[in-house]
Amino acid sequence: MGDGTERNYGGIVAYDGTAYAGFQSQPNRSTIQGQLNKALARLTQEPVKVIGAGRTDAGVHATGQVISFRSGWRHPLADLERGLNALLPRDIAVWAMRCVDDGFHARYSARERTYLYRIYTGDRRRPLLDRYATHVPEPLDVEAMEAAAECVIGRHDLAALGQSPSGRSTVREVSDARWMPLEMGIGGDQAGIGFRVSANGFLRGMVRRLVGSLLEVGRGRWSAAQFADLIASQDIGQAAAPAPACGLCLQHVTYDDEIPQWRMPEG
Amino acid sequence: MGDGTERNYGGIVAYDGTAYAGFQSQPNRSTIQGQLNKALARLTQEPVKVIGAGRTDAGVHATGQVISFRSGWRHPLADLERGLNALLPRDIAVWAMRCVDDGFHARYSARERTYLYRIYTGDRRRPLLDRYATHVPEPLDVEAMEAAAECVIGRHDLAALGQSPSGRSTVREVSDARWMPLEMGIGGDQAGIGFRVSANGFLRGMVRRLVGSLLEVGRGRWSAAQFADLIASQDIGQAAAPAPACGLCLQHVTYDDEIPQWRMPEG
Repeated sequence: MGDGTERNYGGIVAYDGTAYAGFQSQPNRSTIQGQLNKALARLTQEPVKVIGAGRTDAGVHATGQVISFRSGWRHPLADLERGLNALLPRDIAVWAMRCVDDGFHARYSARERTYLYRIYTGDRRRPLLDRYATHVPEPLDVEAMEAAAECVIGRHDLAALGQSPSGRSTVREVSDARWMPLEMGIGGDQAGIGFRVSANGFLRGMVRRLVGSLLEVGRGRWSAAQFADLIASQDIGQAAAPAPACGLCLQHVTYDDEIPQWRMPEG
Repeated sequence: MGDGTERNYGGIVAYDGTAYAGFQSQPNRSTIQGQLNKALARLTQEPVKVIGAGRTDAGVHATGQVISFRSGWRHPLADLERGLNALLPRDIAVWAMRCVDDGFHARYSARERTYLYRIYTGDRRRPLLDRYATHVPEPLDVEAMEAAAECVIGRHDLAALGQSPSGRSTVREVSDARWMPLEMGIGGDQAGIGFRVSANGFLRGMVRRLVGSLLEVGRGRWSAAQFADLIASQDIGQAAAPAPACGLCLQHVTYDDEIPQWRMPEG
């Protein structure tokens, strides 16, 4: 907690997760947290431990990850942001750095996280989409996937979709879970669909297992009732294989009103 | 030219050019043409030399490159396409393979090529856009860039924008050159703009030098008249630095009506 000269800082981080073993630091692996800790230590000349709102898996991307850290940095905030971006690899960028209340903690203070999972359809593989979306060549029954997705909204024990990172409760409050058409932009006019899900917290691998299981419904292999049975079973062994990491992106994290600027509008 | 058992084949190729030293084969460098030649030789068990419609530079992408090649392949076309895609690296994909007239040549038969250059604006770098678009943080006067772009439309000696790949004429017929708003899709709702240019042929580095020079107009450093003077000068030394390769994509190549299916609709 420091000697009284430290302040609490926060900011948004965006990254292409392809090259990283996830957010969380691991020995001998390149991680987002590790890169941030290293860049901050170089810039501030003191050891820094960054806290992230969401511990994204290996290969998962973010446009609105939120971090916080304590530091004795006393120079302008703009220099902190510029300095960090100069030291970080080009696939990680820091935005909107600011001083935050002493009690602010990127993970524990977060009220809600929103993830987007991107899929492109059609029978042709698109190399310019493959890095940030998953190719599903089969036709999908999106209405059936929408109906099934609705049954995860609310407060449920979601043990069938993942383990708790802390080893504690697997109950989560899902406030929204919906499929939507997506304009893929880069890579041509190929139709895309996205699955956006917001919850007060996520179990390990939860979005990817949820998408993998909803795709079984979309392919006509599972009925919506079978999907509901999966959730009710609380048995992770019954979930479909997780959808690939590359399609997943942490879009934003919601906090109380004091920092509304951190809620980035995302497409 | 073969012993009478060879046929002429054609197809569309899409690629993420980031990892390649351009389309054209070079000794000891990984190229798109080299990868295609290698995959075809493995599949057909004979040496094959692929011809491409556009010799894209190192780092330039394509969603609608067209290739042709002669081969003794006698199995179904669908197997040729599937086999190639299985052998090619994941950042190259082949589509719409078919048998074409003996006289068809992907480069010499092409009537027009269309390139798109993608730019995203705003002061924040976006790691999920950086691979396929160029970041221009300064505000741009798009109307001025549009007005300047118009003066390259028509038949002109464009020696100021590049050298002829063949060392011959630098006269090219530009049928369209326009700026347009772009939905970037992946990476958030950040505004993007695109420059789309169609011509009967392109000089080496022409689109990137054109975009680099138009950006000088957009930043207010050059007037539209100065841009017109650059074209009139026929002096490549007066062009601005070429815009980065990552923003450029070969979108489609137009041929005579016999193969209209190769004109892919692109966003």
